[in-house]
Amino acid sequence: MNAILQILLFLTLVTLASKGAGYLSTRFGQPAVFGEILAGLLLGPSLLNVLGWGVFRATEDGSVPHAELSAVVQVLAEIGVILLMFVAGMETDLNEMRRVGKVASWSALGGVVLPLASGAVAAHLFGYGWGEGFFMGAVLTATSVSISAQTLIELKSLRSKEGSTILGAAVIDDVMGIIVLSLVVAFVGKGTAGHAAGAAAAASGAAGASAGLGWTIAWICLKMALFFVLAWVLGRRFLERVTVSVNRLGVSEPVMAFVVVVAFLYAWAAEYLGGVAAITGSYMAGVLFSQTSFKERIDRGIHPLTYSFFVPVFFINIGLRADVRQITQMAGMTIFILVVAVLGKVIGCGALAWVSGFSYREALRVGVGMISRGEVGLIVAGYGLAHGIIGPEVFSVMVLMVLITTMITPVWLRHVFPRVVEERGAQVYESVARMSGREDGEA
Amino acid sequence: MNAILQILLFLTLVTLASKGAGYLSTRFGQPAVFGEILAGLLLGPSLLNVLGWGVFRATEDGSVPHAELSAVVQVLAEIGVILLMFVAGMETDLNEMRRVGKVASWSALGGVVLPLASGAVAAHLFGYGWGEGFFMGAVLTATSVSISAQTLIELKSLRSKEGSTILGAAVIDDVMGIIVLSLVVAFVGKGTAGHAAGAAAAASGAAGASAGLGWTIAWICLKMALFFVLAWVLGRRFLERVTVSVNRLGVSEPVMAFVVVVAFLYAWAAEYLGGVAAITGSYMAGVLFSQTSFKERIDRGIHPLTYSFFVPVFFINIGLRADVRQITQMAGMTIFILVVAVLGKVIGCGALAWVSGFSYREALRVGVGMISRGEVGLIVAGYGLAHGIIGPEVFSVMVLMVLITTMITPVWLRHVFPRVVEERGAQVYESVARMSGREDGEA
Repeated sequence: MNAILQILLFLTLVTLASKGAGYLSTRFGQPAVFGEILAGLLLGPSLLNVLGWGVFRATEDGSVPHAELSAVVQVLAEIGVILLMFVAGMETDLNEMRRVGKVASWSALGGVVLPLASGAVAAHLFGYGWGEGFFMGAVLTATSVSISAQTLIELKSLRSKEGSTILGAAVIDDVMGIIVLSLVVAFVGKGTAGHAAGAAAAASGAAGASAGLGWTIAWICLKMALFFVLAWVLGRRFLERVTVSVNRLGVSEPVMAFVVVVAFLYAWAAEYLGGVAAITGSYMAGVLFSQTSFKERIDRGIHPLTYSFFVPVFFINIGLRADVRQITQMAGMTIFILVVAVLGKVIGCGALAWVSGFSYREALRVGVGMISRGEVGLIVAGYGLAHGIIGPEVFSVMVLMVLITTMITPVWLRHVFPRVVEERGAQVYESVARMSGREDGEA
Repeated sequence: MNAILQILLFLTLVTLASKGAGYLSTRFGQPAVFGEILAGLLLGPSLLNVLGWGVFRATEDGSVPHAELSAVVQVLAEIGVILLMFVAGMETDLNEMRRVGKVASWSALGGVVLPLASGAVAAHLFGYGWGEGFFMGAVLTATSVSISAQTLIELKSLRSKEGSTILGAAVIDDVMGIIVLSLVVAFVGKGTAGHAAGAAAAASGAAGASAGLGWTIAWICLKMALFFVLAWVLGRRFLERVTVSVNRLGVSEPVMAFVVVVAFLYAWAAEYLGGVAAITGSYMAGVLFSQTSFKERIDRGIHPLTYSFFVPVFFINIGLRADVRQITQMAGMTIFILVVAVLGKVIGCGALAWVSGFSYREALRVGVGMISRGEVGLIVAGYGLAHGIIGPEVFSVMVLMVLITTMITPVWLRHVFPRVVEERGAQVYESVARMSGREDGEA
C-alpha cells in the first residue's frame, strides 16, 4: 500500500475512533474530548500501537515521496490545534475578558510561581539537585489551554466570566512561563537561555550567552511585546478593510483563504518572531477576526472541516505519542509530581483569583481550567533531556504528567462547571440544529 | 525554524500565491485554475525553487518528528484532490449523466484507443521499439479529470450535457485505461501486469504471472466490477439512513466527520481493493452523498476549507514537481508527443461523441475536457522508468506532456464553452454573494 493510501486509511480510522469515543464519553456524562484522548491512548503504544501495524509501516512503493505516517499525523495535529485555538479566539468575549483582565493576570502569576517552587521542592525531596529541580518546576509552569478551551466550548462556558479568565490567564501564562523557562535554563543550562520554548528562541539565546542574562531577558520580553503590539494593532487597523477587499476577488473562497493565511501567519510569527507559542498567535488571529463583520461567515466556514477532520487528529495524536506502561517504572515519583502539578495550578491560580475577588467556586473553576499541560511542557522536557539537564526517567515522568493532567482537566471541568447551563445549552442547540439543519458551536 | 513553523510559513505562501495567481488569471479572462498551476510552476524548480530555500530546508531541531516538507505538501495535495473530486461528485447531475451514458462510454473508448495507437506509432517514428512505443501510448491513455472538473465548476458547466459526459467518460476512461495498461505492461514488462496503476494491483500482477494473462485481466475486471457494484449498492442503500443516525450523535460535526470517513474510505477502497484511481472513489462518494437529504449542508461544510486550504495546495503542487527547463533537451519529441496526446483525446473522444449523436461543438467540448493527464500517467511512467521499460529521457517527456496538457485544458475549455452562461453565472453569483454574505460554487 502506498503512503497516500496508508494515510487515507489511518485518517479514516482516526476520525471513526475519535467520534465514536467522543460519543461514548458523552453517554457517560463526560466531555467528548476526554473520550477522544482516551481513544488515542488505546490506539497508541500503550495498547494497540496501530502505527506499528504492518499495514501502516513504511511502503515498498517508491512512486510517491514517502512521508513517515507518524510525522504526517503530527503535522495534521499541529494544524488542528492551531485551527482549534483560532476557533476559541473567534468565540472569545472580548468585553468579558477585559473585565477579568486583572484577575487573569494574578491568576496566571500564581499558576507560574507555585508550580515552579513546589516542583523544585518535590524534585529535591526525591533526591534531585536544585538545578534539575527548578528545571522540572519550570516544565510544570506551562499551561496548555487547548483542552480546556475545547471543554469549555462543549460546556457552553467559554464566554463566561471563568472561561474568559482561563483563556486570558493562559495567554499571560504563556508569556510568563517562557520568561521563567528562559531564566531557569540560563541558570541551569549555562547560557542557552531562550532556547527552551522551541528552536525559535535560539537566536536570542545565542545573543544572550555573550551579552549577559539581563540583556537576554530584556530581549525576550521586547520581542514578545513587539509581537503582541504589532499583531494587535495591525489586526485592529487593517483586518476588516482587507477582508472586505479580498471578498471582492473573483476566486473561490477568498475570505476563508485569507483567514487561513492570517491564522497561519500569526501562529508562525508568534513562535518565530515573538517567541511565544504558535497557538497563542492563532488564538489572537481568531479574536481579531471575531471583531470583523465577517465573524459569522468565518465561523460557519471553518467549523465543519476543523471539527470533523483536523481536531480529531489532534486529540488522537496526544494519546498516540504516550505510553502509559512507563508509569510502572517510576510510579511513586510520577504520582507525587502529578499531585504537585495539579495542586500547583488549582491552588496557585485559584487562590490568586479568589484574592482578586472571585468567589470560591469561580476561583476553583479557573484553577481547574489551568491544570492541563501540553506541547510546550513536552518541548521543554525534550530540550532538558537532549541537553542532559534531566535524565530519561524524569522525562518519562514529565510525559505522563502532561498526559494525565490533560485527561483530568475535561472531567474535572465538567464537574465544577454548572451543569444546568450546559444541559439547557444542549437542548437549545438541538432544537436549533433541527430547525436549521446544521450544527453550531457544540463540540 | 522547526518543521511545523516551516510548514505554516509554506502553506501561507502557497495559499497567497495560489489565490493571487488565480485572481490575476481571471483578470486575463482565464480560469483561476490556470493561474494557480502557473504559480506552482514559478515557485517550483523551473524558476524559484522555494522548496530548496534555506528557510524550508530540513530543521536543526529534533523536538518535533521531522517530516520532509515536500512529502507533507504532497500528502495535503492528495487530500486536496480527493476532496476536490468529492465536491465534483456532489455537483454531478446524475440524471443528465444517465442520459449521456452511452456517449460517454463511446467517447472514453475513443480516448483510449486513439492515444494508445498514435502514441505507439509516434514513438516508433522516433526510433523506439514497439514495446516502448505501446507503453508510451498507454501512458497517454490516462485522463485526469480533476483539472477539467474544476474548470467546469468555474464555468458553471459541470452539470451541462457536455460536463456530465466529460465526468462520465473520465470514470470509464479510468477503468479502460487500467485494463489497457495492465495488458501493455503484461506484454512489455513480462508478467508484472496489473502493477502499473500503483502498488495496489501488485497482488493481482503476481497472481497473474503464474496463472496466465487471461486470468490476470479477468481478475482485474472482477475486482473493479466488485468495487463499483458494492460501493454503489452500499451507498444507495445505507448512506441516507446512516447519516440520519450519525446526525443524532451529540459530538461535534457528526455529519461532516462521517462524510470525511466515507470519502476517504471510498478513495482508499477504489485504489486498494478496486484497482482504479483513488479520486474515482471519492468522486463516487460525492455522487452518493449528493442524493441524500444532507446535500446542501455537506456542500456548505466541505467547500470553505477545501477551496481555501487543500485545493490550492493541490494545484500549486502540480507545478512544484515539474521542471520545464527539461524541455530544451528533447524539444522535438516533447512537442510531437504533446500534439499526439492532445489530438488523440480531442479527436478520439470528440469523434466518437459526434458519431454517438453530439453536435460538432458539443463533441469538441468533450474532447477538450479529456485532454489533461495527471497523476496516473506519472505513476505509470514512473513504473516504466523503475522497471527499465522506458529511459529517463522518455520519462521527462512524459512529465512535460502531463504538465502541458494540464495547463492547456482550462484555457481551451474556457474558449470552447459558451461564455454567456459563465458571465451571467458570475453576475448572479456576485449578487447572491452580496445578499447572503457568503460565496457558493464559484471556484
